[in-house]
Amino acid sequence: MRLGVIGLGRIGTIHAENIMKLDDVELYAISDVREDHLKKMAERFNVARAYVDPYELIEDQKVDAVLVCSSTDTHADLVVACAKAKKHVFCEKPLSLILEDVNKMIEEAKKNKVILFVGFNRRFDRNFRKVKEAVEKGTIGEPHILRITSRDPEPPPIDYIRVSGGIFLDMTIHDFDMARYVMGEEVEEVFSTGSVLIDKEIGMVGDVDTTVVVLRFKSGALGVIDNSRKAIYGYDQRLEVFGTRGKISVDNVRESTVVFTDEHGDRGSRYLYFFLERYKEAYLEELKAFVDSVRNNKPPAVSGEDGKMALLLGYAAKKSMEEKRPVRLEEVML
Amino acid sequence: MRLGVIGLGRIGTIHAENIMKLDDVELYAISDVREDHLKKMAERFNVARAYVDPYELIEDQKVDAVLVCSSTDTHADLVVACAKAKKHVFCEKPLSLILEDVNKMIEEAKKNKVILFVGFNRRFDRNFRKVKEAVEKGTIGEPHILRITSRDPEPPPIDYIRVSGGIFLDMTIHDFDMARYVMGEEVEEVFSTGSVLIDKEIGMVGDVDTTVVVLRFKSGALGVIDNSRKAIYGYDQRLEVFGTRGKISVDNVRESTVVFTDEHGDRGSRYLYFFLERYKEAYLEELKAFVDSVRNNKPPAVSGEDGKMALLLGYAAKKSMEEKRPVRLEEVML
Amino acid sequence: MRLGVIGLGRIGTIHAENIMKLDDVELYAISDVREDHLKKMAERFNVARAYVDPYELIEDQKVDAVLVCSSTDTHADLVVACAKAKKHVFCEKPLSLILEDVNKMIEEAKKNKVILFVGFNRRFDRNFRKVKEAVEKGTIGEPHILRITSRDPEPPPIDYIRVSGGIFLDMTIHDFDMARYVMGEEVEEVFSTGSVLIDKEIGMVGDVDTTVVVLRFKSGALGVIDNSRKAIYGYDQRLEVFGTRGKISVDNVRESTVVFTDEHGDRGSRYLYFFLERYKEAYLEELKAFVDSVRNNKPPAVSGEDGKMALLLGYAAKKSMEEKRPVRLEEVML
Amino acid sequence: MRLGVIGLGRIGTIHAENIMKLDDVELYAISDVREDHLKKMAERFNVARAYVDPYELIEDQKVDAVLVCSSTDTHADLVVACAKAKKHVFCEKPLSLILEDVNKMIEEAKKNKVILFVGFNRRFDRNFRKVKEAVEKGTIGEPHILRITSRDPEPPPIDYIRVSGGIFLDMTIHDFDMARYVMGEEVEEVFSTGSVLIDKEIGMVGDVDTTVVVLRFKSGALGVIDNSRKAIYGYDQRLEVFGTRGKISVDNVRESTVVFTDEHGDRGSRYLYFFLERYKEAYLEELKAFVDSVRNNKPPAVSGEDGKMALLLGYAAKKSMEEKRPVRLEEVML
Repeated sequence: MRLGVIGLGRIGTIHAENIMKLDDVELYAISDVREDHLKKMAERFNVARAYVDPYELIEDQKVDAVLVCSSTDTHADLVVACAKAKKHVFCEKPLSLILEDVNKMIEEAKKNKVILFVGFNRRFDRNFRKVKEAVEKGTIGEPHILRITSRDPEPPPIDYIRVSGGIFLDMTIHDFDMARYVMGEEVEEVFSTGSVLIDKEIGMVGDVDTTVVVLRFKSGALGVIDNSRKAIYGYDQRLEVFGTRGKISVDNVRESTVVFTDEHGDRGSRYLYFFLERYKEAYLEELKAFVDSVRNNKPPAVSGEDGKMALLLGYAAKKSMEEKRPVRLEEVML
Repeated sequence: MRLGVIGLGRIGTIHAENIMKLDDVELYAISDVREDHLKKMAERFNVARAYVDPYELIEDQKVDAVLVCSSTDTHADLVVACAKAKKHVFCEKPLSLILEDVNKMIEEAKKNKVILFVGFNRRFDRNFRKVKEAVEKGTIGEPHILRITSRDPEPPPIDYIRVSGGIFLDMTIHDFDMARYVMGEEVEEVFSTGSVLIDKEIGMVGDVDTTVVVLRFKSGALGVIDNSRKAIYGYDQRLEVFGTRGKISVDNVRESTVVFTDEHGDRGSRYLYFFLERYKEAYLEELKAFVDSVRNNKPPAVSGEDGKMALLLGYAAKKSMEEKRPVRLEEVML
Repeated sequence: MRLGVIGLGRIGTIHAENIMKLDDVELYAISDVREDHLKKMAERFNVARAYVDPYELIEDQKVDAVLVCSSTDTHADLVVACAKAKKHVFCEKPLSLILEDVNKMIEEAKKNKVILFVGFNRRFDRNFRKVKEAVEKGTIGEPHILRITSRDPEPPPIDYIRVSGGIFLDMTIHDFDMARYVMGEEVEEVFSTGSVLIDKEIGMVGDVDTTVVVLRFKSGALGVIDNSRKAIYGYDQRLEVFGTRGKISVDNVRESTVVFTDEHGDRGSRYLYFFLERYKEAYLEELKAFVDSVRNNKPPAVSGEDGKMALLLGYAAKKSMEEKRPVRLEEVML
Repeated sequence: MRLGVIGLGRIGTIHAENIMKLDDVELYAISDVREDHLKKMAERFNVARAYVDPYELIEDQKVDAVLVCSSTDTHADLVVACAKAKKHVFCEKPLSLILEDVNKMIEEAKKNKVILFVGFNRRFDRNFRKVKEAVEKGTIGEPHILRITSRDPEPPPIDYIRVSGGIFLDMTIHDFDMARYVMGEEVEEVFSTGSVLIDKEIGMVGDVDTTVVVLRFKSGALGVIDNSRKAIYGYDQRLEVFGTRGKISVDNVRESTVVFTDEHGDRGSRYLYFFLERYKEAYLEELKAFVDSVRNNKPPAVSGEDGKMALLLGYAAKKSMEEKRPVRLEEVML
């Protein structure tokens, strides 16, 4: 299978590296608007084709499937182009910040019978997957309460935040997808509130840096997400599902199992600080899942619909914070 | 110091037992409306005076201070009577379900210069106290997010729930007090939502059994409380405060430190199942604090105002769930 | 039941305090050679009889059972006197440092049909008891390896060490009893080695402060004990039994469940520093067990034979270190 | 750098895979006596040269360095041949079971100025390395007690055990190296004892399956190693160093951070079952260290002398068990 990667930023490069690790899969073509960077990458991965223009990559007959890892605002056109060119496509999250575009992407993919796979990498983390499986198997009985804590070590640059669509579409969107994934049911209503506690500048561009979101699922189960843009101890990714037969939880991943004990007590290892450390393995598993979908023509593990639902939850959270009231999902659907 | 205990139910009996453990404090008088039970208790604790009528106990010249542990609806009249009789008074939570009554209790205590001490026992748990101290000392920097999980092993009898004032006034009220205690600041706004997932009967009497409450503090810090009336694994009491310099958390208390490991992994000990096991030590510390206030004429560790604020938060949560919107605390103040 | 306590040092006082907590048991008489101290204690516990001469206490017709908590060198004569006076007796560990004396104590107790109960308090710790029960039930299958770590926060005064009989008879003797208790079988052979690493003075009085002991049980199972006289982080009492179906372990007991997390990782609570904190509950359970034996004429939970076996293991360890070779238990039996 | 691998069994294959992962290093040649297997591997890794005769690989001018991963009895001749051919050499543990051979290997390497690197992979595990660094930095003060627990999930085939040189040279040898590595000092005296508790057949070929070894270091510090050939819960690799300023310990590595809690308590994830899972990362780090030594002509992280000392400790342990007495290291030196 010949893969093409569009956009060799931080994430695109990870996918490229992971492609090199897989057998029977070739990193055949890459594309990046930054010509020098493209050259460097072409050498590093020693690929046959390097295109400044992503559409040339998409049109390349030899390319079987494309990974779209460029900036969010370019996703829609590129994914649509891939679909029209009958190329299976993996698209980084979020599909787009504009619902109409997402609908178009889904339609085109369907019409052209290509796989549209959305890059919600956390679903492929072994820990979260175990929780999903346990909930599915009924290990905890009927789920009643979901708790997600998701905190970043550092806020992104202010210029990134300005175009990010806000914390709910940029950061919480991962947690919205995780909530649907783990609970295996849809959200009916969203309430959210937020504050600017870390950096006034974030407030000045109209965003918040600390939030709490409450989810009401169709079954009546309740969910809570708390986010912060800055956790001094590093990447904080915890989850708990509480149900009629018990609770199941995922703790953070530590650097080591070393514990030092002195008169002040025990000191455990620090957390993996950065999401690329934390989800290194998950990114590879994600790629394998995409390749598996393409090769065996399986429905994608994370579909366009999944991408759309996460976006809608982001819309609802945004509206809820603006209007200071719970918002039902229908209110933000087209 | 001669103490009198009114109401020798589950909690009143614990206080009586704890009084026996303290030096220089005498369980001088008890009162209970159930005459036989009163007799039994009088023998068991071998007290000088046993009154069916609590007002006789209050009027007893020899009594220095009174613990009011009877049913909530009797608190107001008894506390007011104690105040008028110039008796310092410890009152179990909640002071009352009626705000006017609480105001009267506070006024009378003030007017008669007696101590009014409210029985929020959890403040005296060594774990929560350590968190309070750490937050006060600035160990975690400026607090941004508070998370409280509080789940009971079993719902109370439906007849109790019917008169309980609802989950927010009966159960969450502990968490409201804990939130104010740990954060050291006041709540500005409350949002709550709830479901009936455990027992339909609870719904039929107009209550819920599973809730999530979001608190917005004056500083902009956010708090989340989740409650369930039934956790199969036992009493679940966890708390975390996240701030600019780190997070501090309290985990549940286990029966032992024994871990068994087999091919399925590690198995730790079960949690203390019941609140009387979990807070055994806290109840004694609470009593010591009351005795200390009386003896050294110190302001109470938990004041009437604290009891009132917790009630107001309960009102706000109730109103928020009914009106499906966040409620500002002013809205429920008189 | 009327109890008499001989020797109101640290341990004797704990037993006296615990007697006060039990129903239907009276602290009737106490004895201590320090007249002033005896007076103070008599007031504090407000006992009917206070004897400078312990034999007067033993002869007191009203006394049903005696707790011997005086210095080790007095144990033998006092226990023998108790037995002859037909008084059930609880004796602190070690029964004696002299095997002949121990034999005499056991004989006299048997001859006079009185209970001789030895104060190995750790057997009554809920954690270790759970391990014992699990091993007995076969939870871990057939036991193969026992690991005991036992370290004190501080060495005792050098004058105490001088008369202590050495670390194996003073400190390790607890672990020897624990090993027999948990494994439920006898030791066949002992190897030990030790060093002076903490305080040269300890070496100058002919003792060591850091030791490792290897036990070979009759079944072929192996045990390891490591001891240190000084653990900066406080009292360290861990145990693990490894068997064909898994392992079961006891960790130390911490002051709280509070964990603080910052950029350096997690920080758990310190350990209970002092054995009286660590075994507070165990001492009470131990007393209850003694009272239960006396009241219901049950064989003692820790018998004179148990006390003798622990002493023999101490002898064997001492001999092994001196002769630099493993020593079979027969070699130290009379 | 062009590398050759001799012996493509389980370990040799891991090294070959890891070579593929490194930049600027080429898996140039491989050798295996099993012709078919060799062919398969040659294709799989698509190497330029595949030799049935390892000496042809050693003589190949293009090969810069050799990894000797064949059976232990072949190590000596192959390493000596590598040295004479001026090839740097990585040799799997143990260098040899025969001390004279080890001496010859070390001499030849020295004489021909080639690097001799011994494959004690555990030194490259991030957890153990952190402990080593902490001890070196004095974090725990002066080390007093070392505890190593090392248990395998399954015994090897009996035919392997028959030629393995016994548990001390086959299994404990890793722990001997770890002990020297972590403590940073030499062992003076060894005492060991063992039992046959898992499989009688192991006894019938003259070996034991359960052992305890006591180490006395030159400083007087004491070490304890316990080994079992069969831990039902999987690979058990723990270590603790106790010193004047605290203790530092390494726990096992778990499959996930997921914890399930029900009425029986918490259930953590199972351990990594197999040493290849547990030390996956360590093997790669080990290879990098070897490549680094060769490229930058650095002394090897694990030298021939290290390999020799571990062997001597194995000899001493063997002799100690046979003669039922502690054995000083000089007694087994030539």
